[in-house]
Amino acid sequence: VSALGGGFPGRQVPLITLLTDYGHADPFVGVMKGVLYRLLPSANVIDLCHGIAPQAVSEAAYWLDRCQPWFPAGTLHVAVIDPTVGSARAILAAHIADHYFLVPDNGLLSQRLLEHPDAEIRAVNFEALGLRAASATFHGRDLFAPLAAWLAGGARSLAELGERATPQPSALPRAKASAGGVEGEVVTVDRFGNLITNIDAPAEHSARGACLQILGHTLALRSTYADVASGELVALVNSFGSVEIAERDGNAAGRLHAGRGTDVRLTSAQGP
Amino acid sequence: VSALGGGFPGRQVPLITLLTDYGHADPFVGVMKGVLYRLLPSANVIDLCHGIAPQAVSEAAYWLDRCQPWFPAGTLHVAVIDPTVGSARAILAAHIADHYFLVPDNGLLSQRLLEHPDAEIRAVNFEALGLRAASATFHGRDLFAPLAAWLAGGARSLAELGERATPQPSALPRAKASAGGVEGEVVTVDRFGNLITNIDAPAEHSARGACLQILGHTLALRSTYADVASGELVALVNSFGSVEIAERDGNAAGRLHAGRGTDVRLTSAQGP
Amino acid sequence: VSALGGGFPGRQVPLITLLTDYGHADPFVGVMKGVLYRLLPSANVIDLCHGIAPQAVSEAAYWLDRCQPWFPAGTLHVAVIDPTVGSARAILAAHIADHYFLVPDNGLLSQRLLEHPDAEIRAVNFEALGLRAASATFHGRDLFAPLAAWLAGGARSLAELGERATPQPSALPRAKASAGGVEGEVVTVDRFGNLITNIDAPAEHSARGACLQILGHTLALRSTYADVASGELVALVNSFGSVEIAERDGNAAGRLHAGRGTDVRLTSAQGP
Repeated sequence: VSALGGGFPGRQVPLITLLTDYGHADPFVGVMKGVLYRLLPSANVIDLCHGIAPQAVSEAAYWLDRCQPWFPAGTLHVAVIDPTVGSARAILAAHIADHYFLVPDNGLLSQRLLEHPDAEIRAVNFEALGLRAASATFHGRDLFAPLAAWLAGGARSLAELGERATPQPSALPRAKASAGGVEGEVVTVDRFGNLITNIDAPAEHSARGACLQILGHTLALRSTYADVASGELVALVNSFGSVEIAERDGNAAGRLHAGRGTDVRLTSAQGP
Repeated sequence: VSALGGGFPGRQVPLITLLTDYGHADPFVGVMKGVLYRLLPSANVIDLCHGIAPQAVSEAAYWLDRCQPWFPAGTLHVAVIDPTVGSARAILAAHIADHYFLVPDNGLLSQRLLEHPDAEIRAVNFEALGLRAASATFHGRDLFAPLAAWLAGGARSLAELGERATPQPSALPRAKASAGGVEGEVVTVDRFGNLITNIDAPAEHSARGACLQILGHTLALRSTYADVASGELVALVNSFGSVEIAERDGNAAGRLHAGRGTDVRLTSAQGP
Repeated sequence: VSALGGGFPGRQVPLITLLTDYGHADPFVGVMKGVLYRLLPSANVIDLCHGIAPQAVSEAAYWLDRCQPWFPAGTLHVAVIDPTVGSARAILAAHIADHYFLVPDNGLLSQRLLEHPDAEIRAVNFEALGLRAASATFHGRDLFAPLAAWLAGGARSLAELGERATPQPSALPRAKASAGGVEGEVVTVDRFGNLITNIDAPAEHSARGACLQILGHTLALRSTYADVASGELVALVNSFGSVEIAERDGNAAGRLHAGRGTDVRLTSAQGP
């Protein structure tokens, strides 16, 4: 199959998503796309997000985990949040849950993805591929983009990229069950100041009467923002299935001086 | 016609624009595109703008009105500025001036679009379509994206989406004629601090000698920024046909402490 | 060849990049794309960057110079940083190094591009083309977008756009050799606060022992960020071949109160 070919079977246009902490102030994302379209003119490259906080691997791991299922089967997700770029950290190429992934081996894959029964995870063998980075600092352009074009375009199969490998553990902290509840933390703050945690929606029977504790506040778990008055804090399950703390018509992060890493605890009236 | 088909007659690639207040810090826009391309791989999805101030329906209504004519006939414009998401507000699907629109029924369409002689405006009937939102808060992903894919791809015709409906009045305030002038307000502030109003360019004969009043300042209506010295305020007709207040080589919004909602008045030397 | 045709020979999809100072808060970029896709539905329009500081022609000239080589041959680069829009400044259409360019004639092309042996640079003749701007301020939409669609789509050849012209000198300042070193300046600051200069990587033999001077600091030229401890300043050659000043895990621009235009000097232990 040629690099200019149709790519993944059953798709005319190989879909590639980009998730980075490059921001929009500089042309770093644009240059990655230049390399991608040079090697794979038939690609369709989508910005998943470039607003990840600089070097925030756990934040990116959360979003990659939660966004992936909304994309078509066969999509290739390229995530470059890479604080150890230039070190000996490996690059992983993976096929999990009918999706493809290219990530630095620094915990960007969630435990859900790592433990998926059909996960095939390989470490890219650059020597065997004859691929060398033109720079020590911009592997998004020099390594991830060509690898993505090869993989999505069918020029290289997953197996041709390298041997099966055991990846680093996930950087996304997992909520922990404790007496009468679940201990978690804020993993990302969205544009609206909503605090999104790593605690999954509780089962329906334990959601009734459940309370969320954060920085001395105790909030009943509600269904929607509209369950409280304007200006009040509310805890609810967001559209990605995670417990979230919001201020109706306001900014919970600013109000609570909370952010990534702030501890939260969900307790259930029914007990554990 | 299948959802994977060619879409609108005469176009190979269905063009879909997105206008939201989601910003670029989070992957909300990216996820909407995932759903769109999953259902309509042949789509061409363009970001019209995601920098609308949170929940600023009137600002979005201004830009949707002014930008739509620059797109090809047959384009589908999806605008999701949706402060009442989760309430019983309807979703409108419309065909106006050879363009398609999908918007919450909260005033996002301008009076110009609402009153267009060929406007066909329908309220989406979710029950009949068998479409349910997976969340109470992210209808951009759960309702607007699938509806857009169906409509642009030809899987559903406009008439199949629901019955004709009478939409809410436009949220974009209309300038009002008054003795010797026109009363309006600032509807959006652009990146450069220019204050864009809802007052249209006056007819040529009344433009001569016209004056713009804002926060105690009276500015002659000029042709271009270059008609005043650097650092001076200037009123002119902008590239979208609206009266605008700028500071040459500066930021009028910061200088005047003005913003959305600030009152302005255009008076004509010739009288009304 | 029709405007709807395949465009540049050998490419199915004409690739067009956009580089502007329009930002993402307003729909200016979106409207440019509307015009492009109206005239050339088969185009593939890529955002190179829209975060150029307002009216910063030299910053844009730096990035255009450094990013262009990463795109496929035949790409059309449209750069609209245009402080003198509405004046009599010309618009240049060029073919240089197998790439196409559309820029205002204000120094946006680097000396490297201007002096390329195969450079063909023409001034657009609007009268002959029958093209008039609908506005005095938004030539990105009114002139650059239609010209780009014509050129990339093959509706007009480069020669048909106008006569050969002598462009304005580059706005990108060139570093100057001086006794024992090179004098340059900061040309852009990236998202991470790294200060990127117009001094190219020194030849290998003079890199050893080279020192970078900035605002009273003298920094040895290192290979990577990791060569210094966290919180320390470091000078190195970045991924675009330019000398850069960074603070490891920090923000050099904020720490040094430096920005575009700050003087720097590279001295070599070996002498000139």
